[in-house]
Amino acid sequence: MPFSEFYQKYFPFWEKLTDDDREYLCQHSSVVRFEKEQSVHTSAECSGLYIVRSGRLRLYMLSEEGKEVTLYRLSPGDICMLSASCVLKSITFDVYVDAEVPSDCYMISGLAFSTISERVMEVKNYALEIAVQRFSDVMWVLQQIVFMSMDKRLAIFLLDEVTANGTDTVSMTHEQISRHLGTAREVITRMLKHFASEGWVEVSRKGIKILDKNKLRDIAC
Amino acid sequence: MPFSEFYQKYFPFWEKLTDDDREYLCQHSSVVRFEKEQSVHTSAECSGLYIVRSGRLRLYMLSEEGKEVTLYRLSPGDICMLSASCVLKSITFDVYVDAEVPSDCYMISGLAFSTISERVMEVKNYALEIAVQRFSDVMWVLQQIVFMSMDKRLAIFLLDEVTANGTDTVSMTHEQISRHLGTAREVITRMLKHFASEGWVEVSRKGIKILDKNKLRDIAC
Repeated sequence: MPFSEFYQKYFPFWEKLTDDDREYLCQHSSVVRFEKEQSVHTSAECSGLYIVRSGRLRLYMLSEEGKEVTLYRLSPGDICMLSASCVLKSITFDVYVDAEVPSDCYMISGLAFSTISERVMEVKNYALEIAVQRFSDVMWVLQQIVFMSMDKRLAIFLLDEVTANGTDTVSMTHEQISRHLGTAREVITRMLKHFASEGWVEVSRKGIKILDKNKLRDIAC
Repeated sequence: MPFSEFYQKYFPFWEKLTDDDREYLCQHSSVVRFEKEQSVHTSAECSGLYIVRSGRLRLYMLSEEGKEVTLYRLSPGDICMLSASCVLKSITFDVYVDAEVPSDCYMISGLAFSTISERVMEVKNYALEIAVQRFSDVMWVLQQIVFMSMDKRLAIFLLDEVTANGTDTVSMTHEQISRHLGTAREVITRMLKHFASEGWVEVSRKGIKILDKNKLRDIAC
């Protein structure tokens, strides 16, 4: 599909642009494919905007010691705005973006988008609005970390994973889960052992199979 | 000072408004005084926008169990936008705002501001831009909580407090500090005992006196 056809449906501001501006954005667009676990964006560089067409991207923070915390995921139809720091100048923190599974994206150069957004207020508005929506996602993470016990967070994580993947098994190592939740591997292993001893999950080399979804939901709520 | 004179200097969008819109905003403005520790805004109600004229406001999250985490403070000249949830519809989380010291504010009705912001894109843009700036503050808090050890967080907190108040003593109880940092009182007491035994602070009934600012800065960095 040519970009213009897609953008016309996707961007609420498209009709406010001149033909020249539209062409300019399309000329600075490309199709990018990321393999599983490939890095999409690191730190404060202005990589550009990514619209997820298929697959799934993960945004996370990374500490100097290599500790990670997942902020949110992007599914097909979602747009990644925080990877275009030149568009949102008041965003002063660094985020990292990886592909969780093989993912196809449309990419618009950050500089090109920024040029248009400085001139057309509707475009600026759109970018800010997207960022503010993500603010709410991050507040949810903060709330979880500060106010929730780890068993609750793990239950929510497992339920979210199986829902997102449409399976009953989370195919991740304890190490991977602990990175998502920003804790130590030992904490996850201990917690999963407890979940398994209660018969709520089954832990094997293939991953964590959910046996009692209702019980996990109870813990999550 | 009449509101219009102040707003003209304060709001970058003021010159874009019609005379009617300006008058409308001024008519829906008021001067509000908050006593120390008085609540300014609770939860998701649309209280309105507050511009701090004197004093200091504190924004925080509150769990169901009454646990708090400070997100950021507002000083004279700062504007509180998250208390006007009707202006920023994509903000879906609840914040609480208290006056930390006696504070004078200008308040604009959330509904009035929202009405104008729906019509004048520059106003909407201003509100979103302020919210996105605060996003960066909150990310800093999240980073501190997830990646920093408590001694580092406590050192930063004590240094920020004495800088904000222009004194060398933090006049707060361990309980109050623990609420700011979202941890248990015992953790703060233990940490302060350690700081005191090293000669970096002096703990008395009056509060925590900073004896070795440089050492605290070392821990903070």
